[in-house]
Amino acid sequence: MLSRLLQPEIQSLIAERQLGVLKEILTDWTPADIADLIVELPENEQVIVFRLLHNELAADTFEHLDFDTQELLIKAMGKEEVAAILNEMSPDDRTALFEEMPSSAAKQLIQLLSHEERTIANALLGYPENSVGRLMTPDYIAVKPDMTVQQVLDYIRIHGEDKETLNIVYIIDEKGKLIDDVKIREFLLAPLVSPVRELMIENFVALNVNADQEEAVELFKKYDRVALPVVDKLGILLGIVTVDDVLDVAEEEATEDIHKLSAIEALDEPYPDLPVLAIIKKRVPWLSLLLIGQSLTAVAMGFFEGELLKVAALALFVPMLISSGGNSGSQAATLVVRAMALGEIRLVDWWHIMRREIFSGLAMGLVLGLIGFCQVIVIAQFSTAIESYLSLIALTVGISLVGIVLWGNIAGSMLPFILKKFGIDPAASSAPLVSTLVDVTGLIIYFTVALLILSGKLL
Amino acid sequence: MLSRLLQPEIQSLIAERQLGVLKEILTDWTPADIADLIVELPENEQVIVFRLLHNELAADTFEHLDFDTQELLIKAMGKEEVAAILNEMSPDDRTALFEEMPSSAAKQLIQLLSHEERTIANALLGYPENSVGRLMTPDYIAVKPDMTVQQVLDYIRIHGEDKETLNIVYIIDEKGKLIDDVKIREFLLAPLVSPVRELMIENFVALNVNADQEEAVELFKKYDRVALPVVDKLGILLGIVTVDDVLDVAEEEATEDIHKLSAIEALDEPYPDLPVLAIIKKRVPWLSLLLIGQSLTAVAMGFFEGELLKVAALALFVPMLISSGGNSGSQAATLVVRAMALGEIRLVDWWHIMRREIFSGLAMGLVLGLIGFCQVIVIAQFSTAIESYLSLIALTVGISLVGIVLWGNIAGSMLPFILKKFGIDPAASSAPLVSTLVDVTGLIIYFTVALLILSGKLL
Repeated sequence: MLSRLLQPEIQSLIAERQLGVLKEILTDWTPADIADLIVELPENEQVIVFRLLHNELAADTFEHLDFDTQELLIKAMGKEEVAAILNEMSPDDRTALFEEMPSSAAKQLIQLLSHEERTIANALLGYPENSVGRLMTPDYIAVKPDMTVQQVLDYIRIHGEDKETLNIVYIIDEKGKLIDDVKIREFLLAPLVSPVRELMIENFVALNVNADQEEAVELFKKYDRVALPVVDKLGILLGIVTVDDVLDVAEEEATEDIHKLSAIEALDEPYPDLPVLAIIKKRVPWLSLLLIGQSLTAVAMGFFEGELLKVAALALFVPMLISSGGNSGSQAATLVVRAMALGEIRLVDWWHIMRREIFSGLAMGLVLGLIGFCQVIVIAQFSTAIESYLSLIALTVGISLVGIVLWGNIAGSMLPFILKKFGIDPAASSAPLVSTLVDVTGLIIYFTVALLILSGKLL
Repeated sequence: MLSRLLQPEIQSLIAERQLGVLKEILTDWTPADIADLIVELPENEQVIVFRLLHNELAADTFEHLDFDTQELLIKAMGKEEVAAILNEMSPDDRTALFEEMPSSAAKQLIQLLSHEERTIANALLGYPENSVGRLMTPDYIAVKPDMTVQQVLDYIRIHGEDKETLNIVYIIDEKGKLIDDVKIREFLLAPLVSPVRELMIENFVALNVNADQEEAVELFKKYDRVALPVVDKLGILLGIVTVDDVLDVAEEEATEDIHKLSAIEALDEPYPDLPVLAIIKKRVPWLSLLLIGQSLTAVAMGFFEGELLKVAALALFVPMLISSGGNSGSQAATLVVRAMALGEIRLVDWWHIMRREIFSGLAMGLVLGLIGFCQVIVIAQFSTAIESYLSLIALTVGISLVGIVLWGNIAGSMLPFILKKFGIDPAASSAPLVSTLVDVTGLIIYFTVALLILSGKLL
């Protein structure tokens, strides 16, 4: 990016203390590019560069920085500087910052705000975590339906400066109740003398302030809006949510689902920023549970120890067989979990999905069974354990694979439905959990098939 | 949603052929809600309702429908009706429709377009798949820098009607080269007599028409824009990409990564819509490859068959041990893959990540080793295979777990780096692939530890 290319030049300007020149250069940059530059600089130079920015640009740049850099700058700056930045920031980005900090530090910062901004900040932090209220900003344009287009444009020219978006104009009645949202497009295209009322079609979509943020993502995708209004249960307009914040939420949700599918608890920060101990805490509980669950495989194998002692060759194929069940099962679980997250599958579809997975399980099982049969023949060339009845053992492996893959498919695709039915996030159907569930059954299928085929001959 | 609540009423209006009333009701609905309604209706009623919409609303609604319903409507309507819809659609959504269809069908539809729209459609389809060009629309507002704010607003009032967005105004020179993009906000806030030149800061960000769509997602997230301009390599403005299309791309990418992480090839359509055979084709190649890879576990166990014959109890813990390596490995791989996708980790960070994973691998291995030690003691109560030297076998399992979990962490976290280094998508480091790689090593670690601890006693 721009900032990385120019970094040596910037650093030499800092070294030579040519801060006036640097200040001039930076005024032409976008806040996002300046943020990129600051992150790449050594810590002691970050504050030097940040201090060169005038108030508004500083606040805009600050909003683009990651939390760690924000915290570092806050610690390095004086109270008055911090207060200026915080008062200038968009209320929604400011809420996000306060959310990340320890609550005692957040409280100190809130004390630095002006009375008006402090009221706003406390109101926003009063909404539940992960609720739409936490994403909201109260800086929007609202007008009455009896104004003319000309009056609205004049009103915007005077009051629009610090609004989060001018792309949508909200129409409210005397009590502040939202009656419509109209795109600025309509105002730009309508005759100047038209009353606002004529632009309204009253088919607006609003978010409830207590609704879950995931709901906001769904509505943004469905209605292709750049901003959506937020109302309380009486329909009073409280603020707006803009699409850029929702893009972040969508990404966070995808990350959480991806992590859960690998049996990792949701991380609070990006993986590279999280201390190792915190990561271990997110991983060890699942690993321990899975290990304990896996001990059932040892118990199951214990049941068949008589057979194992007679035909030690059977043990050779255990890892290969049970992993096939785990693999097909986790494929099926992942397909169902993601389709649920995207709203493509609902609970009532379980039977439809089950039939599909039974059919594909049989088909894939036959393919893998055939491969498995051939593998045993090949592996026998490297091993002295399989001397006699080679073809019978190969048959056992082949037939077991059909059953194991079929069972993997059924268990993997149904687990998300069962979890969802009981109100648990279906993304908890991780590959490791599915494998663990399927492994024990896989062993039982394998040894049962072995008993049927080999009894009277080897067993 | 609205549409599902009202569906019985709508269906009775259709049954009673009260189409005039229905038509009146629908004019107040948003295209997204009408699309929702149509999808829920029986197929034969879908066309009836869709035909009630006037041209522009019909096109907007059509853009919100899924591909299957779009195809059904096209087949049910006459050529002229289809032509009217296609000519009215946004060029970007139209490209998406043509992309989904068999190319012969798409060609027939393109013939129905007006000369002007046909030229646009063919130009857009001429860009490579997954390139920014395929997301682009050529309907934007472009002005010259010497116009005044008043002139621009007048120009928009006359020419803005069919533009994709009026939220951003593009400034071009005589040759059509992009020199800046200015938010409509600036025009709404500036004095009417100001020249456009005064609003420019020339720090615009543009997408190259041939760039990958993933790049567009990154830039949208970074710059928080509702639209980005698209230029050719000479900087000539060709079109714009809007954020709603990018939200779809981001979602598709996350889905692809999630699927790859479970060893499923990227699907071309949503899982529930894809025919079972197509799904099998996406799953069986990986399952077969993994099965073949897993045969190495049988070979590895074959090497230790002497030990297995002497101490059959060792076999009981094989599934449990190797699955722990697979689980910790797939956790590590998933963390690294997702962090790479979000741009949080680069190739050069490999050593930093390796050190972290070695440390957390040791810590997690110790916890699991302790659990494993206790498990063996407990399992011994259910099995007669572990009669003698119980504590030595428990020790073997415990120590092996430390090595296996550590190795799982190292292999799982480094595989994405290796794949990326060789130009392969790191998301191919699926849980099943990592497990397969780790299983063989896990067996070798286990039997080596067993040899060291048990030799002279049991072996």
